[in-house]
Amino acid sequence: MINVGVLGATGAVGQRFVQLLAEHPWFKLTTLTASERSAGKRYREVVKWRLDVPFPDNIGDIRVSPTSVPSLKDVDLVFSALPADIAMDVETACANAGLAVCSNASSHRMEPDIPLVVPEINPDHLALIDVQRDHGRDGFIVTNPNCSTIVMTLALAPLRGFSFRNIQVATMQAVSGAGFEGVPAMGIYDNIIPYIGQEEQKMETETLKIMGTLEKNSVRSAPYHVSASCHRVPVLDGHTMAIWTDIREPVEKVKEAFVGYKPPIKGLPTQPKESVHYFEEPDRPQPRLDRNRGNGMTVSVGRLREGIRFVAMGHNTIRGAAGASVLNAELISSKKYL
Amino acid sequence: MINVGVLGATGAVGQRFVQLLAEHPWFKLTTLTASERSAGKRYREVVKWRLDVPFPDNIGDIRVSPTSVPSLKDVDLVFSALPADIAMDVETACANAGLAVCSNASSHRMEPDIPLVVPEINPDHLALIDVQRDHGRDGFIVTNPNCSTIVMTLALAPLRGFSFRNIQVATMQAVSGAGFEGVPAMGIYDNIIPYIGQEEQKMETETLKIMGTLEKNSVRSAPYHVSASCHRVPVLDGHTMAIWTDIREPVEKVKEAFVGYKPPIKGLPTQPKESVHYFEEPDRPQPRLDRNRGNGMTVSVGRLREGIRFVAMGHNTIRGAAGASVLNAELISSKKYL
Amino acid sequence: MINVGVLGATGAVGQRFVQLLAEHPWFKLTTLTASERSAGKRYREVVKWRLDVPFPDNIGDIRVSPTSVPSLKDVDLVFSALPADIAMDVETACANAGLAVCSNASSHRMEPDIPLVVPEINPDHLALIDVQRDHGRDGFIVTNPNCSTIVMTLALAPLRGFSFRNIQVATMQAVSGAGFEGVPAMGIYDNIIPYIGQEEQKMETETLKIMGTLEKNSVRSAPYHVSASCHRVPVLDGHTMAIWTDIREPVEKVKEAFVGYKPPIKGLPTQPKESVHYFEEPDRPQPRLDRNRGNGMTVSVGRLREGIRFVAMGHNTIRGAAGASVLNAELISSKKYL
Amino acid sequence: MINVGVLGATGAVGQRFVQLLAEHPWFKLTTLTASERSAGKRYREVVKWRLDVPFPDNIGDIRVSPTSVPSLKDVDLVFSALPADIAMDVETACANAGLAVCSNASSHRMEPDIPLVVPEINPDHLALIDVQRDHGRDGFIVTNPNCSTIVMTLALAPLRGFSFRNIQVATMQAVSGAGFEGVPAMGIYDNIIPYIGQEEQKMETETLKIMGTLEKNSVRSAPYHVSASCHRVPVLDGHTMAIWTDIREPVEKVKEAFVGYKPPIKGLPTQPKESVHYFEEPDRPQPRLDRNRGNGMTVSVGRLREGIRFVAMGHNTIRGAAGASVLNAELISSKKYL
Repeated sequence: MINVGVLGATGAVGQRFVQLLAEHPWFKLTTLTASERSAGKRYREVVKWRLDVPFPDNIGDIRVSPTSVPSLKDVDLVFSALPADIAMDVETACANAGLAVCSNASSHRMEPDIPLVVPEINPDHLALIDVQRDHGRDGFIVTNPNCSTIVMTLALAPLRGFSFRNIQVATMQAVSGAGFEGVPAMGIYDNIIPYIGQEEQKMETETLKIMGTLEKNSVRSAPYHVSASCHRVPVLDGHTMAIWTDIREPVEKVKEAFVGYKPPIKGLPTQPKESVHYFEEPDRPQPRLDRNRGNGMTVSVGRLREGIRFVAMGHNTIRGAAGASVLNAELISSKKYL
Repeated sequence: MINVGVLGATGAVGQRFVQLLAEHPWFKLTTLTASERSAGKRYREVVKWRLDVPFPDNIGDIRVSPTSVPSLKDVDLVFSALPADIAMDVETACANAGLAVCSNASSHRMEPDIPLVVPEINPDHLALIDVQRDHGRDGFIVTNPNCSTIVMTLALAPLRGFSFRNIQVATMQAVSGAGFEGVPAMGIYDNIIPYIGQEEQKMETETLKIMGTLEKNSVRSAPYHVSASCHRVPVLDGHTMAIWTDIREPVEKVKEAFVGYKPPIKGLPTQPKESVHYFEEPDRPQPRLDRNRGNGMTVSVGRLREGIRFVAMGHNTIRGAAGASVLNAELISSKKYL
Repeated sequence: MINVGVLGATGAVGQRFVQLLAEHPWFKLTTLTASERSAGKRYREVVKWRLDVPFPDNIGDIRVSPTSVPSLKDVDLVFSALPADIAMDVETACANAGLAVCSNASSHRMEPDIPLVVPEINPDHLALIDVQRDHGRDGFIVTNPNCSTIVMTLALAPLRGFSFRNIQVATMQAVSGAGFEGVPAMGIYDNIIPYIGQEEQKMETETLKIMGTLEKNSVRSAPYHVSASCHRVPVLDGHTMAIWTDIREPVEKVKEAFVGYKPPIKGLPTQPKESVHYFEEPDRPQPRLDRNRGNGMTVSVGRLREGIRFVAMGHNTIRGAAGASVLNAELISSKKYL
Repeated sequence: MINVGVLGATGAVGQRFVQLLAEHPWFKLTTLTASERSAGKRYREVVKWRLDVPFPDNIGDIRVSPTSVPSLKDVDLVFSALPADIAMDVETACANAGLAVCSNASSHRMEPDIPLVVPEINPDHLALIDVQRDHGRDGFIVTNPNCSTIVMTLALAPLRGFSFRNIQVATMQAVSGAGFEGVPAMGIYDNIIPYIGQEEQKMETETLKIMGTLEKNSVRSAPYHVSASCHRVPVLDGHTMAIWTDIREPVEKVKEAFVGYKPPIKGLPTQPKESVHYFEEPDRPQPRLDRNRGNGMTVSVGRLREGIRFVAMGHNTIRGAAGASVLNAELISSKKYL
């Protein structure tokens, strides 16, 4: 068992990390950090648990530490659920201090020597860890993409054998993506907000790095052009998106690619039976019915039509955030980077 | 004052017609039809009024008639809120009997001699009324498009001066579009249904006719290719849509087209001050805040970005249905077709 | 293993029965009935599965039978998820034919020789089974109360030691209580419907029977007066209610009763660890966060204040419907009535 | 025309004040205050207008002032939409400086020489203004009750002729009552929060003052006992409540009291045609359909049953907040207190 910690353990993504790590077969969750004013208190006293799964009692008695390197002396790996502005320095300090950092924050995603990884798509990019070490770091940082980007790139993973260049995507994103307090009910109830700060830019740039090619010390961007339009809708969990590509193959061939898709990884505990599920039903995927497929780690696709266009949906705080980081950590561990 | 009637006056669109016609300056609402079992009763007794505007008391005492030609002997024009399967024959019978029929039903929209009209876009298509008369009809049928199509085509109206060929649209449609009973709460609450029967096909075909060119006895389709992806979201009223076109002009020029847009009609009572409102704010239009602009007749656009992409939104049961038909009737009347 | 069937297996409650019985340790689900037009087809072909738990694949291949006695020759016990109007005759026929019937329908609940049972409250009422047999029946019917009544009576169960006479209850009920199609989104979204047909009457009469005293051949009603006000709210699952009683004991004593409550049953597979959970937190129970406690079988209470008043909440289609019937069947089985 | 100002003009209640005063026949809105950082900018630049009625353009160019007495030199009356902690001192300072203050804040409501007024119920309580003046103030403060209390007391107003002592009320309150940012979507969507800080206490104490009897220098509390249970539900606007009283008269007599109710005021511009509307329909009032009755100033009651119990509903930010204060100001003005 590898001792692990969670940075920023009381927020929305932090709670998902705790949920996923409470009974993990490889990782033992020993350290939880939060703001100074919570430090020293038991996790059960400081967290306002707002998931609809039971609070993990075995974790509740852990005393919360401040978010800083000295708190982490007993762990080998930390998961970061920090906001981007804090994550920048804290994660760097942790990596410099010899820790493996699996981060859900956006701060370091686009740095040339930091892998931006979705295990089913670019597990080879972990080789950038060695570049970080060559740069003098004892530890390293590995990041996962933005929630919408993860759902879209996984939906595209089965199609990498086809030739295409343009991707257009219109998202319908759940409120949980903005954190527990992020979206007021008065703002989104009976409404759509057709704007999510930085989201389109993240989808348009991160996709090219994830789907890019590993070269000597960096990643060459994939030759795609992504045009995104991002919208918040009154859904609690699960990002749904309409995707167009300029694949010229017949629908039937594309369907075969979805149905026959096999990801290049196996044996990781958080990996779902199906990374991508293909729906024949004309009215699926639907976020409320399908977001928990594969314990929230399966991305569902459906409504495949000529265009080539289709609909994709995945759980934004599991597959799109905490679960993505945990799966990255499992990949790192299985590849002996720890 | 012209005496008018509403066919199918108790349903969702029928109630909107009644709301819009109760105090109309040109039309006097004298006849309401519904199913046989309601015939003979007062409108207030048979309608379950579910709009959030007050019930029009001056209409409540009208006795409901059966939906058939003999009920309509006192009117010159009827508005049809009938379901498509019933509309086909009833509307034909009405037109043959000498009535002007303004229909919101889809049944006759694509027939070559039937105008499919949005007054701001193709008022000249009313000339097909003469073709119908040449075919031996005493009256005529004029139709308005599907709700999503109306919102999209109005949003495109200011851009007709630009050269483009491809349109991609992802809709986020309100539940009222399916009628009062059309969408169960259990189906749509905390959910998205990524499928609306026939909706994509309607957007892809009706757009070409509306934006097409009137030739001698018919309309030559506009040379566009529309690719639609339609989704139901938990919003009560207001269809929102992300639209891409392959216009190659700079964003600033497109913005000027939106801001400077002047429709080719004027003086119609139901016509809003602005047919298309352009939002500078980064997070607009939003259906709950903006659907009632121009008494529900204004289509709002915003988030204009290179692409050229933008977001459009309009009230689906007013601008997209009953209000569209009433505006058509006003255009017909002002052009002396009655 | 006892072979069991579900009458009306495709509806909202029927699907919950299938979910709860698919892996049951005592009951083997072998028979599913539905309307004539589904008969002969596989369950997976005729059911539109709308629960957010995965479809039970092991049940999907069962061929659906018509809802009638001959379909049930292989089972000893049937669960009825039939609508009340159909349930009346079909359940009687089943019981006369020798079957044990555990019914969620309201049809037979108030008949003198039919037990109306919540296992934690009145397990002794099962003795009415013998009265039914004395009346010449080979089988028997056992019913569970209406969903709101179950939640309220379980919340009152720990308080039976106190003296009180009046109960007032205002419910805030979930839409799933009306079935999948029961409540249109247009009716309940951003709204409350302060009326649910027959619901208040059911709470006011069923409570007296459940909490009544078994006498020789019937139940003497409990000497309570219940005054209910029932309201539908935009919540998917979980009925919440504010309850007042005229208990004159101090709040602290009432709290002890909740905390120390032990039901008189044990060892039943569907019985939760806690039948009633007491919340200290000032803002609980909440339906979305707490409805799945105890796999949906725990009723949560909180906000205990002088009055004596408090808030209760339970899952209406599990504890309040299908799970209630299954727990009754387990009790029947453990008491050797089969 | 009397010049008036709004304290705290950018928040939820502040925007409602601006909406109601923009075209007021007696009051000219000349001054808007907000926090220091907005001072000096135009209202249209600093307000994030979030009502679904159009922004009042005639008000948009007013330059916002800081919230302090010197800003108010041009006005005779101010409306306070301040949070309670700030309101305490600012309102006192304004009243001492000679201004009439109509406050929606809770800070001063229960002070003996401050009238807590609902014009239809206790217009005579304005006599306390003279007590304030006797205490040496140049101006005065008049308050309106909490939103839920207003709806309940108006619903009880027609029943004051009956003898009763106990009132029990379970509320289902809209999210707008907590301000625009007050309730996160993640907290209330598909959920109920059975707790609203201080709300029950306000309903239980304010009611007694409003319905109390004016004596020489203060109000003798009404001899009622109110027991409230307050709950937040996923509704945007409109507080609904189930109310029980121990009135012993037959339902028919109570109905007559509702139907025949005439309030003791008339001629005030914001006063609705009906202060209390009685619904015969079995499923009304409903917040979405009925909250805008009387421009949001009518309280609707229905579902009258023996008990005596019934359901009441009113618009919480119009009748329950800004509209209540404006109506108070009109009453003050008509009684020549200005």
